[in-house]
Amino acid sequence: MADKAQIQDAIKTQGEVVRKLKTEKASKEQIDEEVAKLLKLKAQIGGDEGKHQFTLKTAKGTRDYNPKQMAIRERVFNTIIRCFKRHGAETIDTPVFELKETLTGKYGEDSKLIYDLKDQGGELLSLRYDLTVPFARYLAMNKITNIKRYHIAKVYRRDNPAMTRGRYREFYQCDFDIAGQYDPMIPDAECLKIVHEILSELELGDFRIKVNDRRILDGMFAVCGVPDDKFRTICSTVDKLDKMSWEDVKSEMVNEKGLSEEAADQIGQYVSMQGGMDLAERLLQDAKMSQSKQACAGLTDMKQLFSYLQLFQVTDKVVFDLSLARGLDYYTGVIYEAILTQNCPVNVSATQNGVDEKAEEGVSVGSVAGGGRYDGLVGMFDPKGRKVPCVGVSIGIERVFSIMEQKAEASARKVRTTETQVMVASAQKNLLNERLRLTAELWNAGIKTEVMYKKNPKLLSQLQHCEDSGIPLVAILGEQELKDGVVKLRTVHSREEVDVSRAELAEEIKKRTSDV
Amino acid sequence: MADKAQIQDAIKTQGEVVRKLKTEKASKEQIDEEVAKLLKLKAQIGGDEGKHQFTLKTAKGTRDYNPKQMAIRERVFNTIIRCFKRHGAETIDTPVFELKETLTGKYGEDSKLIYDLKDQGGELLSLRYDLTVPFARYLAMNKITNIKRYHIAKVYRRDNPAMTRGRYREFYQCDFDIAGQYDPMIPDAECLKIVHEILSELELGDFRIKVNDRRILDGMFAVCGVPDDKFRTICSTVDKLDKMSWEDVKSEMVNEKGLSEEAADQIGQYVSMQGGMDLAERLLQDAKMSQSKQACAGLTDMKQLFSYLQLFQVTDKVVFDLSLARGLDYYTGVIYEAILTQNCPVNVSATQNGVDEKAEEGVSVGSVAGGGRYDGLVGMFDPKGRKVPCVGVSIGIERVFSIMEQKAEASARKVRTTETQVMVASAQKNLLNERLRLTAELWNAGIKTEVMYKKNPKLLSQLQHCEDSGIPLVAILGEQELKDGVVKLRTVHSREEVDVSRAELAEEIKKRTSDV
Repeated sequence: MADKAQIQDAIKTQGEVVRKLKTEKASKEQIDEEVAKLLKLKAQIGGDEGKHQFTLKTAKGTRDYNPKQMAIRERVFNTIIRCFKRHGAETIDTPVFELKETLTGKYGEDSKLIYDLKDQGGELLSLRYDLTVPFARYLAMNKITNIKRYHIAKVYRRDNPAMTRGRYREFYQCDFDIAGQYDPMIPDAECLKIVHEILSELELGDFRIKVNDRRILDGMFAVCGVPDDKFRTICSTVDKLDKMSWEDVKSEMVNEKGLSEEAADQIGQYVSMQGGMDLAERLLQDAKMSQSKQACAGLTDMKQLFSYLQLFQVTDKVVFDLSLARGLDYYTGVIYEAILTQNCPVNVSATQNGVDEKAEEGVSVGSVAGGGRYDGLVGMFDPKGRKVPCVGVSIGIERVFSIMEQKAEASARKVRTTETQVMVASAQKNLLNERLRLTAELWNAGIKTEVMYKKNPKLLSQLQHCEDSGIPLVAILGEQELKDGVVKLRTVHSREEVDVSRAELAEEIKKRTSDV
Repeated sequence: MADKAQIQDAIKTQGEVVRKLKTEKASKEQIDEEVAKLLKLKAQIGGDEGKHQFTLKTAKGTRDYNPKQMAIRERVFNTIIRCFKRHGAETIDTPVFELKETLTGKYGEDSKLIYDLKDQGGELLSLRYDLTVPFARYLAMNKITNIKRYHIAKVYRRDNPAMTRGRYREFYQCDFDIAGQYDPMIPDAECLKIVHEILSELELGDFRIKVNDRRILDGMFAVCGVPDDKFRTICSTVDKLDKMSWEDVKSEMVNEKGLSEEAADQIGQYVSMQGGMDLAERLLQDAKMSQSKQACAGLTDMKQLFSYLQLFQVTDKVVFDLSLARGLDYYTGVIYEAILTQNCPVNVSATQNGVDEKAEEGVSVGSVAGGGRYDGLVGMFDPKGRKVPCVGVSIGIERVFSIMEQKAEASARKVRTTETQVMVASAQKNLLNERLRLTAELWNAGIKTEVMYKKNPKLLSQLQHCEDSGIPLVAILGEQELKDGVVKLRTVHSREEVDVSRAELAEEIKKRTSDV
């Protein structure tokens, strides 16, 4: 191997060759050839050549939101928060990390996806995995037995990100939960009503809300001959039915989890069932299912739930689906999950990339909301084990953002990222001070105002900025206007100009932008 | 040492003794004596006895926000965001963690306060320490050379928390920054105008905004005889002048950092100076200071800054203060910091706890905003070192929250945590379905509505809930009302009741709550 210094010299020389060819505008082939030689030399010397290569990126599975994305995000949040407030919810916030032990034993097989903080002395901490466990910790810690709250915040999962489909390692959850001892299924029905309202208002296309109950699942496992200690792990496998075929799910049950083939086949019959109140009634008569007290309790509540959903006029979208399992350990009663049933832009792109075969079939385009009842979770935190029954729903907002972004991309309408009403401008030189003075006047009057940070900007570039960012009005100052105590108010869209007295300017701007 | 099983048996027996005494209501002394024996036995066996003792708390230096605090937080954020939008800012968001190397070398001595994530395979990550470095990374990564943006998000510092004074390890920052190549001091002046507007609108009491310039500081260090390689560390020491006396600061400079006594004394003379444009002019004539080109550039810009601040009518609160240093490495020009100058409730309580002596003097109650110019930071991220000049300000919102919370506590006015307009209630039994039906009607009409999740709640408890949570109206259903197609609408405050036809109910509620 040649001496390192020699190679570095050769790199320098070869670099000169390439540069020279480029300035001489040599043919592409010629340049490519010499560049290839250069790269070969660089490869010889390895990664430690030259200065430290800085990695300019966000952490794996995370993303920045640019102003356009933020404008869309704000709109989506407003819709969701409006719904939560319409249902009388308060809001709380909890820290982004919790004591590690707070999260331990709450997420079953998914616990491996928790982000831990480095031990830098002091407590062992982990990033929150969802908003439900911190909520339960909050209730137990503050001895709260009744609350209806929403919480919108980011959660963290070391999952394999599929960012084209709106799946990230850092993502928002929008949670709504009702804690308290109430008559059965009333708060549960309200959660489903909320999902219905939000998905309808966001106009994401058609959707279905699948409903099931942990007690029905457990009862089903029992009557199908699943041993007690395998309920949770078999439940995790059933949960994969939205991503895997029944054959694969069955194979996992039998070959990996050691379930008998007969038990698996019996499960297979049940998990293919879908319906409404009628299905709950039928299963209550089912020779096998009716042997399980648990299943009967779940089915009776399911009937009750559907009766409330009828009053709320949302049964058109709700399906009782025995294949719905949901992986989390803490659910104890009703569980649900909402999916979009139309091929929306996001999935078209995902399909194009060959990422998601199911999307192509239009069967499942992924969950956009989910939740259920978790009556035991708060008790796990209470020193005396006091239970606080809870039911809640989480809106999977990142997927919603992706869809909205692609909709905005596809539409002709421009997304404004500021709310600026007027730009203070000038066509003449040496009026910076006057522009700043007027700008401050408008700020003080509550008008959203911009001004260029240049001593003598060109009028054209000031107008161009208004065009680019959708500012509707320009307040133009000149020597004459200053003398007359007026400002020329220009409407960007129509190019109309009118003199407005300085004293009335703020009012005039308010009037003209009140409909924006 | 006795056998572990033996001790466990003894613990069991002793536990029985204690339980028996308690059920028999024995004397306190007797019980205490036996409990002491029990504890002694338990201590013998160590920490692994019995079940795991669960720690019910949030991580050190963090806190939950309850609904009342959230209501206050929302109001504060609205004020701040309104101001940022008035100044034409867009908003962005970045992930809560960054690649560790992104944060390396940006915070000087404070770098030890960065939270690292555990190495779980893959990239090394750290929680963001501020919003400025992620902003610079964002600009470089997306090759953005012009933007005016705000960013409101939590940042993380492993500092010693002083939570009574509103200092936490997880806290919000509200940042406003202007990036771009502009004429000197115009964006800088706008940042100060923004601080002035926000602190005025929040009505936190009187405040001062101290201003200085890194170039003036560096020039001062040079002419006072500080060696070049000690600029940054001496600057960090000067930064402590708001918390330490000059004597202590001088001692640190001389004894810990090895500065000559003469140099320290000369610095001491300068850092006692405060003024406005006049001080900048005087220092430009100062025999020593005027020898430094850097200092002169800073002083000339300071004069320009004050001239713009006059146009913005904010000079009443701004002081040119040579003792202001700010510890962060990345500042290159103007720096500033806003402090509250009145004894506000927070600090009274801090003084009572003996935490902060300075608060007692009413000298400094801590910074509520700070920022400055950092023209080199984006270049540190750009592969070709392209610079993007930036200036910005960060509002220290946690302290503001603390003050607002204590103000709310002190005032008689109740903080509402929901916006519910009406409660659907009933005085009679068996009307749950009718209540739910009406509730859904109102939700669908956009009315913020609550209903009790009980089959037969007492009217009194329904009215009590309205009193407690400030719901202004109750829609009461009874057999008669249902027959007549009306609802009895009750005003909680006045107890007036009036029949409203069901078709007009939503409109009537909107009318009556439009001023809420």
